[in-house]
Amino acid sequence: MPRFAFHIAATDGAARTGTITMARGTIRTPAFMPVGTAATVKGLRPAEVRAAGADIILGNTYHLMLRPGAERIARLGGLHAFMGWDRPILTDSGGYQVMSLSALTKRSEDGVAFASHLDGTRHMMSPERSIEIQRLLGSDIVMAFDELVALPAPRDVVEAAMARSMRWAARSRAAFDSAPDHATRAALFGIQQGGLDERLRAESAGALQAIGFDGYAIGGLAVGEGQPAMFGVLDYATAQLPEAAPRYLMGVGKPDDIVGAVLRGVDMFDCVLPTRSGRNGQAFTHDGPINLRNARHAEDLAPLDADCPCPVCTGPAAVSRAYLHHLVKSGEMLGAMLMTEHNIGFYQALMAGLRAAIAERSLARFAADFLARYAAR
Amino acid sequence: MPRFAFHIAATDGAARTGTITMARGTIRTPAFMPVGTAATVKGLRPAEVRAAGADIILGNTYHLMLRPGAERIARLGGLHAFMGWDRPILTDSGGYQVMSLSALTKRSEDGVAFASHLDGTRHMMSPERSIEIQRLLGSDIVMAFDELVALPAPRDVVEAAMARSMRWAARSRAAFDSAPDHATRAALFGIQQGGLDERLRAESAGALQAIGFDGYAIGGLAVGEGQPAMFGVLDYATAQLPEAAPRYLMGVGKPDDIVGAVLRGVDMFDCVLPTRSGRNGQAFTHDGPINLRNARHAEDLAPLDADCPCPVCTGPAAVSRAYLHHLVKSGEMLGAMLMTEHNIGFYQALMAGLRAAIAERSLARFAADFLARYAAR
Ligand SMILES: [Zn+2]
Ligand SMILES: [Zn+2]
Repeated sequence: MPRFAFHIAATDGAARTGTITMARGTIRTPAFMPVGTAATVKGLRPAEVRAAGADIILGNTYHLMLRPGAERIARLGGLHAFMGWDRPILTDSGGYQVMSLSALTKRSEDGVAFASHLDGTRHMMSPERSIEIQRLLGSDIVMAFDELVALPAPRDVVEAAMARSMRWAARSRAAFDSAPDHATRAALFGIQQGGLDERLRAESAGALQAIGFDGYAIGGLAVGEGQPAMFGVLDYATAQLPEAAPRYLMGVGKPDDIVGAVLRGVDMFDCVLPTRSGRNGQAFTHDGPINLRNARHAEDLAPLDADCPCPVCTGPAAVSRAYLHHLVKSGEMLGAMLMTEHNIGFYQALMAGLRAAIAERSLARFAADFLARYAAR
Repeated sequence: MPRFAFHIAATDGAARTGTITMARGTIRTPAFMPVGTAATVKGLRPAEVRAAGADIILGNTYHLMLRPGAERIARLGGLHAFMGWDRPILTDSGGYQVMSLSALTKRSEDGVAFASHLDGTRHMMSPERSIEIQRLLGSDIVMAFDELVALPAPRDVVEAAMARSMRWAARSRAAFDSAPDHATRAALFGIQQGGLDERLRAESAGALQAIGFDGYAIGGLAVGEGQPAMFGVLDYATAQLPEAAPRYLMGVGKPDDIVGAVLRGVDMFDCVLPTRSGRNGQAFTHDGPINLRNARHAEDLAPLDADCPCPVCTGPAAVSRAYLHHLVKSGEMLGAMLMTEHNIGFYQALMAGLRAAIAERSLARFAADFLARYAAR
């Protein structure tokens, strides 16, 4: 079994479909990674996540370092054994949450000092500590630690953060390679920065390739810039990154975001949207998102989506919108469980559809049909 | 398929094991019925409830009449189709919740007027309306509507409530029989009252038998009187009821309550304890209840109960106490889901153990061993 092998089976325009082969399993691309923030994809058992079609999930370094703690997870045999998911796990670097969730953050060239949002305890996060935590978790795909800026921001601020992120990328690489036991089994991804600036993005892509990574993430997007601006960056950003390595668009997104990004050559995605929306009573469907709190569903015997293959929509355990409306209105746990199961199943079915369309060189048609129906209501 | 057939396969002392055969399925007795208050056993899919070993669940008339409404459930095809449980459902009469949850209750010989605890709307509950609601739900085992008194209470209050309950039992019987479409497919249980008074209990049992029911519940216990007082009543109450009909102890109970009641001849139980405790981080085990919030579980790789056959404790999806501790401490939905799944599995395994012990005429030994270990810590 190779440590990390990306194979492109077919292309259609800028889009690609293929596989990433790792010791813990094969990841079909384009891939959507459900988010398992606190060592659980909220509301789903690992077997349910897998049954939905997920080949890989994401774990959050920031949340896990604070609770239950990376050293504790290591003592308990690593994140896979801890949560009962034996397939690949990608861990983020913790940088995004450190800067968005914690308080009293203080940035320096060394890293970021911060106070836990749980109990106020002070911690230090650096490229070296982020990589160490991801190693303690037993991560399969480790993310370099980078610095983020909220957009819009002046060009010099974006440029300085990008430049620092590239220095941190080199430190992340060195830290990763310093522990061969883990480095010979795991992969390391670098993260492109540069905001909405094509030249900064190119510079970042060049710096990352000079260091060398197994895969390349496109960072600093999906932070409020809007879909047109994001697609505008993707129009050039994917081509700036190596063709032979997977490209990962972090934190994206809505189904239409994903379709547009796949058209532009992105291979991997993660987002809390299907799980978080599920807990809030929102279901994604081929006809766009619907809110199950709405009284119009109260006596609707139809499933959430007649074209969804998930167990909530079809098969012996399928339920009606009327039942889900009742569960959601009543605050019943089962409502959140089933809505989440559907949303993750819907996302995975979308990825399967995108992969099949690329393989058949019919992606443009698939995307046009999907987007027309999705936006029709 | 008979409408309702109770077959006693074996007895051991006062205890009995057998089956209740109904159109929607066979119920192995002694049976524990998980409580599905609002058309869901909280935190479990129907398939998970069934996999735990449950042959029948309980639905709450009071909760369902208020939300989503009995008429609405009838329009949607009945409670079984609505929630996706195709085996027998017993519905309570709503009397207990009307008197414990609602406000501004006003009792009369006709019934109980009350205000919804959800929105303050005023409703009237009577034997006739209770039976009608249970029919609209499509209940398999319908409970007579009775009047409850909180204990301790003066004897004349207990006696008056018992006497009224017997008049309401006759009205419940008449209401049930007035709708043959339902009555030819469902069963009706009467409820013995009389507090802790043996003579009143005997009088109540006689009145119920004069009316005639498919099964007989022992009501008005597990309301704070304590286990010794409850067992004191059971020592004579079961023998006051027909031997050839199932005896149902409502709202009981803790595992040791159930063992003691089975020893005294009870055949059916329901209780919110395993589901509610699961949501609160408490697990039942052969060594007594444990609270997973306790820090002593933080690095314990053992399962909740090494002798429990549930999927949380054994098999490919089993998890450690350390993981459950983390989930419960983090308020993760999966913690409540898994703890509930274990507790329901533990209860069902206990019932299976009791049934097997009665069949082998070794119940006294089984009960002594179970209770000694359960109380040892
Ligand atoms: Zn679905
Ligand atoms: Zn268990």
